[in-house]
Amino acid sequence: MDNTISRILAKVYENYRGFNEGAVADYIPELTSVDPNWYGICVFTTDGYGYAIGDAEQPFTIQSISKAFTFGMILDDHGPKAVDARIGVEPSGEAFNSISLDPETGRPLNPMINAGAIAATGMVQGSGFEDRFERIRSRFSAFAGSELSVDEAVYRSESATGFRNRAIAYLLRNVEKLDDPVDEAVEVYFKQCSILVTCRDLAVMAASLANGGVNPVTGERVLQPENVEKVLSVMSTCGMYDYSGEWIFRVGLPAKSGVGGGVLGVLPGQLGVAVFSPRLDVKGNSVRGVKTFVELSQSFNLHLFNYPVVSGHVIRRHYKLSDVGSNRQRLKSHHDTIREHGDAVRVIELQGDIFFTAMERLVRLQTELFDSTNTFVVDLTRVSLIDRATEDILLTVASDISDAGKRLIVIDPSEVIDRGRFDSESVNVAFSSDLDTALEFCEDQLIDKHVEAPMVSGLVPFHDFELFQSLDSNELSRIEGLLEMESFDRDCKIVEQGEDPDYMYLLAKGSVGIHLSPSNGAPRGQRVAAFCPGVCFGDLAVVDGSNRSADVWANEPSTCYLFSLASLARLAEEEPVIHSKILRNILLINIDRLRRCNQEIGSLKS
Amino acid sequence: MDNTISRILAKVYENYRGFNEGAVADYIPELTSVDPNWYGICVFTTDGYGYAIGDAEQPFTIQSISKAFTFGMILDDHGPKAVDARIGVEPSGEAFNSISLDPETGRPLNPMINAGAIAATGMVQGSGFEDRFERIRSRFSAFAGSELSVDEAVYRSESATGFRNRAIAYLLRNVEKLDDPVDEAVEVYFKQCSILVTCRDLAVMAASLANGGVNPVTGERVLQPENVEKVLSVMSTCGMYDYSGEWIFRVGLPAKSGVGGGVLGVLPGQLGVAVFSPRLDVKGNSVRGVKTFVELSQSFNLHLFNYPVVSGHVIRRHYKLSDVGSNRQRLKSHHDTIREHGDAVRVIELQGDIFFTAMERLVRLQTELFDSTNTFVVDLTRVSLIDRATEDILLTVASDISDAGKRLIVIDPSEVIDRGRFDSESVNVAFSSDLDTALEFCEDQLIDKHVEAPMVSGLVPFHDFELFQSLDSNELSRIEGLLEMESFDRDCKIVEQGEDPDYMYLLAKGSVGIHLSPSNGAPRGQRVAAFCPGVCFGDLAVVDGSNRSADVWANEPSTCYLFSLASLARLAEEEPVIHSKILRNILLINIDRLRRCNQEIGSLKS
Repeated sequence: MDNTISRILAKVYENYRGFNEGAVADYIPELTSVDPNWYGICVFTTDGYGYAIGDAEQPFTIQSISKAFTFGMILDDHGPKAVDARIGVEPSGEAFNSISLDPETGRPLNPMINAGAIAATGMVQGSGFEDRFERIRSRFSAFAGSELSVDEAVYRSESATGFRNRAIAYLLRNVEKLDDPVDEAVEVYFKQCSILVTCRDLAVMAASLANGGVNPVTGERVLQPENVEKVLSVMSTCGMYDYSGEWIFRVGLPAKSGVGGGVLGVLPGQLGVAVFSPRLDVKGNSVRGVKTFVELSQSFNLHLFNYPVVSGHVIRRHYKLSDVGSNRQRLKSHHDTIREHGDAVRVIELQGDIFFTAMERLVRLQTELFDSTNTFVVDLTRVSLIDRATEDILLTVASDISDAGKRLIVIDPSEVIDRGRFDSESVNVAFSSDLDTALEFCEDQLIDKHVEAPMVSGLVPFHDFELFQSLDSNELSRIEGLLEMESFDRDCKIVEQGEDPDYMYLLAKGSVGIHLSPSNGAPRGQRVAAFCPGVCFGDLAVVDGSNRSADVWANEPSTCYLFSLASLARLAEEEPVIHSKILRNILLINIDRLRRCNQEIGSLKS
Repeated sequence: MDNTISRILAKVYENYRGFNEGAVADYIPELTSVDPNWYGICVFTTDGYGYAIGDAEQPFTIQSISKAFTFGMILDDHGPKAVDARIGVEPSGEAFNSISLDPETGRPLNPMINAGAIAATGMVQGSGFEDRFERIRSRFSAFAGSELSVDEAVYRSESATGFRNRAIAYLLRNVEKLDDPVDEAVEVYFKQCSILVTCRDLAVMAASLANGGVNPVTGERVLQPENVEKVLSVMSTCGMYDYSGEWIFRVGLPAKSGVGGGVLGVLPGQLGVAVFSPRLDVKGNSVRGVKTFVELSQSFNLHLFNYPVVSGHVIRRHYKLSDVGSNRQRLKSHHDTIREHGDAVRVIELQGDIFFTAMERLVRLQTELFDSTNTFVVDLTRVSLIDRATEDILLTVASDISDAGKRLIVIDPSEVIDRGRFDSESVNVAFSSDLDTALEFCEDQLIDKHVEAPMVSGLVPFHDFELFQSLDSNELSRIEGLLEMESFDRDCKIVEQGEDPDYMYLLAKGSVGIHLSPSNGAPRGQRVAAFCPGVCFGDLAVVDGSNRSADVWANEPSTCYLFSLASLARLAEEEPVIHSKILRNILLINIDRLRRCNQEIGSLKS
């Protein structure tokens, strides 16, 4: 694909394409057989979208980049304590092949120098050489999202000439940082370094680290989440040999390079980047790799410490129930009650990823609104994750609200929080799967509390409907003769979308919902409105003659007065005064609806 | 204040309150006079909100924490190249008082060891000791948001005993990394280390770094934005002496400690944290400082590399003009035109801070919608910042849209982008200060294009109004006698909020806007609707008798037919059929409005 981002990458690529400083690694002859001009760049986002340019599909040996992933594996296998007993995490200030064992503990200073990497490979579980190596190869493959193989010639050559690494291994054995058999560990290490990857593989591996340990292309978990920060930490302080300080200063990404010419960098939460170019500088890093990263970091402003200032956008909006209500249509007087008393119900819609600073904003808002609010409705519909630490804070917020005798309703359709932790008797939290239902519930509570005879138990008499207000008794008698009455079972479809209108319905008892026609196999589509007894529905289509715009379902056994289109037409002919009064009433009802809609649009758009 | 966050801080504080490992620094007697039990924690957010507990107001000497801020100062004064010529940025792997000069270049390895810090202080501009020190004191004060003073006794003692530091200074002079007079630089360095700060001061200083170099309490810029990442980079690799690797591994924040017992840490974009506790470990770091940071980092999940995965929330919502329009009320036929052709106008509302990954999502969406869209409306109202690198990408996006002969409208009321860069002839970008105006403009364009006689030039005849549709010629004559006609100057207030309703207005020519009463001195409040010729307004209040709910202003010279409440009442008496027809028409007009409102609420709530 060719979008703006790929064109910028292409420009960076062209900038360095002809650049030929540095020399291919030559400590074994097999490494010199590469084309020194190979050059590839690849970027993967944490939602699995990739950009690639140049020799992004050319395989080469992973070399030291493997160290970061093996370190991750042993953290997963043994836990950080056991790993800490054998390998430190301090930069050595020395070259990659330095021996650098801590004089006091005997531990290699970090897992990115050869000594630490061999100690790490020695901790990879498995029975025997083949089994241990296969675990590594298979985990690396999961990281890359493709089956990786080995450059056997490079492996044989590394093995045949790796005397210094064998010496390091025996020194490690001497201080008990490596178990027997020593030879096996070194062999696995040589073979691990000879695994073939492409620039694309490395970018996906990097993106898996950026994505909290889940490969964003395959969706597979490849590293435990708690170990991701540990691997990245060591990459940030020790990943680029003794150029690591400069690298963080100039590029600002945790990264790892290998003498095969690969470099990968990770912008946590966002991106994995890989560059492949075999010519190396004296410190063993790919020359164009470093240059490309410096330019990408500047072009895209990727430096980790240049993270933009977090603003208050975690709170999508907040409002009172008196300003934005549910989609249930009620008696005007009930709407008035909600408007009068709805200030104490506060809806807070959150969005994005909720981590500490985001939660701190919520805590502050909750503190500010605490006295004036008796019900908090917190909508997590647009929240993609809440980390455990932040969930702890939310739990405390919930307790505070409970302890003060207030109510908390949480809307969490995608279950981003662990409900079990909130289901204790001491915490008064209700969960709801959609905001509209929660708002309706709050409205019902308000009406129950503030309206004397809140809900009608029998049938609402027809003359109590707003539709017939200001009609005198003679006029009402005339109307009575025109009304039919019909009862509907629960889950009966009263009106069907697309039908020609025949009746206005006056809901005398029960409850109905207005639903869009379902698009999939579900029995009912999205609910766009609901009605209480005393309210009429289907009036708009009758007045303007348009087709029914939605289905109407009985939510419970319901009874309606039916007022037909034909009767209305007859009234227009025979009783223009009555007709006129009814039209005016319909108009008044809809003016009221329109005003509420306008207010709601105002609140929603603000 | 006592909210959930401060209670969690209090818990951490209580955990370590009785902890008394470590020893107060004693290399000069003045440092031993502190109370070893002092313990304070302070957190400041990047919007300037603070939490403090314990001895947060107790002054102590800043010591090595000063090194980070002096390094920032010289980057501001001389630029990174000149600084790079004298001081490296690689961790030394050795103790803070090591000499660590690079054997090749003679540069101190980094500015956090004494050698590098003295070289840095030597670069602070000014004429003479007093002047140079005062510049440091005053910049540190700006960082802290309070006037800092010096512990003169500590300074005299440091100066009297600082032989090793003098030796380092002369070695620096020897390799020309320090200018004459050598003594002056060392004296300034001693005095800089003796500046008194509180835990609160340090937290604000840290928050200033987190906030991109702007003190979040005072709003003052204290460090150039491009140098913030550089200071934080060096803190991350070298800030905690030879515990820096472990620190990043366990805490994951760029940090700096001093032997006075202070430690500060920075979560870029989010927080500054400081802890004060004078007992030190063998590496010179505050024991409780380290423990507190480890616990805070875990409790609040602050580790830099545990940054949550960025999700697509940069795009607040996107929709077609056919689904959500401006608040201008038009002829029904015009609304139909907009609904029919508005699919090709795509509104994209962005939110939050726009950095690379966020922009990449926009680029992807724009690519996906490109073929089906001819006008992109990008709303930056809720965007707080776009960094320069990302602005470059937006500029490319704008060119792409222009090159394809499409249109881009950017809503940028708070000028987060540099408009000058977009004002070139080759880029077809229009700017608008509010979304509603932009939507209205797009609607006008659609009507111009798709409606044969788009805008009326003379007066709309009264019988063309929907209000009078289906009236026969006799009925229309009757109506004509009831209408008055009035013209209004531009900026005339036609209707005033709160008035009793007297007339319905039929806009025959011109344009009017419905505005809420202004709350401040502005002549007009927020515009909630606007009307085109052929549309009536003020009808709702006339029908239901409520007070005028808003002001109506003439946007240009305008002419209206006026239809009075009294005439309507007379019609009800004398001509019920006409009255009934008119009511039905008002009802039809408002049913149409209501349907549009409901559709819009649906789009907005989704």
